[in-house]
Amino acid sequence: MEAVFEWFLRQDPDGDRFGAVLRESLDQVLDGPRTMRFRYSDLRKTEKTHVGTIVEINLGKEFDLADGDKMDYSVAGHDVDCKYSMSRGGWELPLESLGHLVLLTWADDGASRWAAGLWRVDPRHLGRGAGNRDKKRKMVKAGQERITWLWRDAPLDENLLLHLPEDQVARILAARSGQQRINELFRLVQHRIIRRDVVLTVAQQKDGPRRARMARETKHLGGEGIIVLGHYEWDVAVANRLGLPVPRNGEWVSARVAPADSEGPQSFSADGHWWRLAAPDEWVASAPKVPRSKALGDVE
Amino acid sequence: MEAVFEWFLRQDPDGDRFGAVLRESLDQVLDGPRTMRFRYSDLRKTEKTHVGTIVEINLGKEFDLADGDKMDYSVAGHDVDCKYSMSRGGWELPLESLGHLVLLTWADDGASRWAAGLWRVDPRHLGRGAGNRDKKRKMVKAGQERITWLWRDAPLDENLLLHLPEDQVARILAARSGQQRINELFRLVQHRIIRRDVVLTVAQQKDGPRRARMARETKHLGGEGIIVLGHYEWDVAVANRLGLPVPRNGEWVSARVAPADSEGPQSFSADGHWWRLAAPDEWVASAPKVPRSKALGDVE
Repeated sequence: MEAVFEWFLRQDPDGDRFGAVLRESLDQVLDGPRTMRFRYSDLRKTEKTHVGTIVEINLGKEFDLADGDKMDYSVAGHDVDCKYSMSRGGWELPLESLGHLVLLTWADDGASRWAAGLWRVDPRHLGRGAGNRDKKRKMVKAGQERITWLWRDAPLDENLLLHLPEDQVARILAARSGQQRINELFRLVQHRIIRRDVVLTVAQQKDGPRRARMARETKHLGGEGIIVLGHYEWDVAVANRLGLPVPRNGEWVSARVAPADSEGPQSFSADGHWWRLAAPDEWVASAPKVPRSKALGDVE
Repeated sequence: MEAVFEWFLRQDPDGDRFGAVLRESLDQVLDGPRTMRFRYSDLRKTEKTHVGTIVEINLGKEFDLADGDKMDYSVAGHDVDCKYSMSRGGWELPLESLGHLVLLTWADDGASRWAAGLWRVDPRHLGRGAGNRDKKRKMVKAGQERITWLWRDAPLDENLLLHLPEDQVARILAARSGQQRINELFRLVQHRIIRRDVVLTVAQQKDGPRRARMARETKHLGGEGIIVLGHYEWDVAVANRLGLPVPRNGEWVSARVAPADSEGPQSFSADGHWWRLAAPDEWVASAPKVPRSKALGDVE
């Protein structure tokens, strides 16, 4: 247990890789870029039962885990099975896992939280009765208290569309062209990180990221005073100055800006002027042109 | 049975959509663009057991099938379960499917063949004994004779790297940069369709298709007399004239060419000259420049 625990902590001291795999796995099953879906309830029956397998596979890939002897993985020389549940504590264990170590994972798009812990499967902490069709038995409350948590209630990157008001989602998805939907997204959702997967889901086309970059042009949102910042040198510096969340690789953030009277700590310079965030009801003219600068991550 | 059979035939008279889903599902599990894998044997244990689920999900999406009442799908008002096997006749049926219709699918990357048929699960044609852990039972030979085939031994788009001689694969994958690997691919594998997934697997970068387009430049393969044709108006016309396999959307084909003495049925005109396929040992100079022409499918 200790060896496996320390192995994972050494590989991923902050849980960033774990959290990213869980986010990516949920996105993969939703398959938004092809289907425009962002709700678990919109999945087909076959897809719903499939999230756990995807998590298992993606964790194995991310940490380059070898196959276990009897269990899914071999970690630091020990057999470890992987189990995922959408509800915390909802893990179901197959009889073959009795006495083995399991990596228990949980990620909840509603709560935007995730967790991962280790547990040695103990029959005293499994529910009685026949179990379900596959002869799996659910862990009982007393078992949860014995979990050695690697990360608990860690923040999960947000499933943005799931957390927007329904009327906003409807307005975004109703626009006719991909560019119009992307414009509506960055118009309605400002000061908030928008991930690549959200852009692809809304754009419904392979060059979604290009649509996000184009949204800043004067004929799109620039004419309404809105800038769209990505993971570029200039963009990141401006996001920092304006106190906006700073886009990582494959992320964007938008904001309405207005001319500033003079240089200040929360202003930036562009097109020969100083600019600041616009107040909610303030009238604004066109946004300044965002200059091309060095891409800090993969080029899209 | 008849209603379901006719529904599928009406949706997909040539089996093109079915065959594409099976190809895509195998590619999806191999995940070559991220992992450079192209052999089933290189998959992790968790991934190997996962192909059937992926086929189920992708067929459901492609044909927009609603959830069944007790089975995976509802097709033309009838409950239908979906089963995939890597080996023909290797289908395993769960006890719950007794008496129900199943869509049996098979795709074999080694043989480059696939099949799909319908069967009503009949306990007399299931193997005896306890079945495997999940209480599934294998169909026996006599059952196979009762399958109503939608498509049988249909050609599956080739898993190219799997069918190349090992030394060629090693040479292609050994090159240091993505562009060099793509060059080696189109240099060693001529007159043969190269699919987008193969290009992405070899390139190991998102802009793999751009690398394929660039391979034709003089500093890459153009200087060796090799042209690389894609799904563009001019390219497709030239592939037709040269008698090469014609690239569909997301496909390429390469060939070494030499100047022709005069116009002929198997020649094309470019850079003010006529060109033909080069003979295997013929010395050639630079290939002509492939002009830009209209993309016939999605632009990469």
